[in-house]
Amino acid sequence: MKIALLGGTGNLGKGLAMRLALVGHEIIVGSRREEKAISKAEEYRREVGGLDISGMVNEDAAKKCEIAFLTIPWEHAVETARMLRYALRGKIVVSPLVPLKKSGDLFVYASDTSAAEMVAAILENSTVISALHTIPARRFADLNEKFDWDVPVCGDDENAKKLVMNLISQIDGLRALDAGPLSNSRLVESVTPLIMNVIHKNRLPEAGIKFL
Amino acid sequence: MKIALLGGTGNLGKGLAMRLALVGHEIIVGSRREEKAISKAEEYRREVGGLDISGMVNEDAAKKCEIAFLTIPWEHAVETARMLRYALRGKIVVSPLVPLKKSGDLFVYASDTSAAEMVAAILENSTVISALHTIPARRFADLNEKFDWDVPVCGDDENAKKLVMNLISQIDGLRALDAGPLSNSRLVESVTPLIMNVIHKNRLPEAGIKFL
Repeated sequence: MKIALLGGTGNLGKGLAMRLALVGHEIIVGSRREEKAISKAEEYRREVGGLDISGMVNEDAAKKCEIAFLTIPWEHAVETARMLRYALRGKIVVSPLVPLKKSGDLFVYASDTSAAEMVAAILENSTVISALHTIPARRFADLNEKFDWDVPVCGDDENAKKLVMNLISQIDGLRALDAGPLSNSRLVESVTPLIMNVIHKNRLPEAGIKFL
Repeated sequence: MKIALLGGTGNLGKGLAMRLALVGHEIIVGSRREEKAISKAEEYRREVGGLDISGMVNEDAAKKCEIAFLTIPWEHAVETARMLRYALRGKIVVSPLVPLKKSGDLFVYASDTSAAEMVAAILENSTVISALHTIPARRFADLNEKFDWDVPVCGDDENAKKLVMNLISQIDGLRALDAGPLSNSRLVESVTPLIMNVIHKNRLPEAGIKFL
């Protein structure tokens, strides 16, 4: 599939770009700045031995793709979704977004509505699927890392949800699990501040979750 | 330690009674009905070969113990906490409570405030610690089960929290982790409806969580 990683220049974008390219997908790295998108795409492509990874501005990436991942920081998510509303029309859009805030030395879930539902309200002509919130981005971006993580996936369109679950499960070490409709997304998103607090307070390495 | 399992006649109570007795603690099973407490204590005691497990009404169990676990169904939790407010004065009280509701075929987190904070507001002269929400009770009650679960623990009193973490970590297969103050409890409690949805939708066996 033709997959856009919007704002895909961070670690989650990098991990997805490389790992999805490695299982045969065509990857477009998007950024607000074209040069950055191109240079990051070039970097990722080198790491996976010349596979199909290109870079362009977010809007072009959104238009060209079949499915887009919102691999952007939470602070820019709403603004980016508004800007790309038309470019993303009719597409599947995956939200790994978490309304995470720091309050003192604590990580808190700073919203009454889930990020996925907020984004879905803006992208009303796209199909929003919520996934990948609990992936430790730094480890995920390192191809030498071994992991075994579960990925709860929420969405209201069963076919789109299955497609995204299938895509995620193609990545070695990830097991996508149906976590219900988009209205369940807060349950999944709020695992991220929980993990952040737990790893910081107990001095653990970056971690994902597994149901076992 | 002298440990009361208030309403400890269900599977979580059974698992805690047997597993804490096995590591040397004195267990009191509490119930609203004395005969039920006594017969359940008898049953658990037989399963662990005659260790120190007795049964009595909740109020006596609360008075006699050093630390109490609120192993009661959520529907009765607030009422039970109110009734035992004086008996639990000065004690450490562990809340594994989750405001879980079913809405159609979905499990939802049905509260704006965490169960632990609600209970702490009632038990204002006790030290409430929040833990054990994600333990799959049926598996935990079966001594043949093997598991490797993490147990996030929240609380505002650092000493009491450490004591509870230590107690939990004495049970083989459980790793207690500091998850911050009681105000973080909702993050932990809401993992339970997430797990319930995931195991039902994906036809998985009962599961706990692990950060890895």
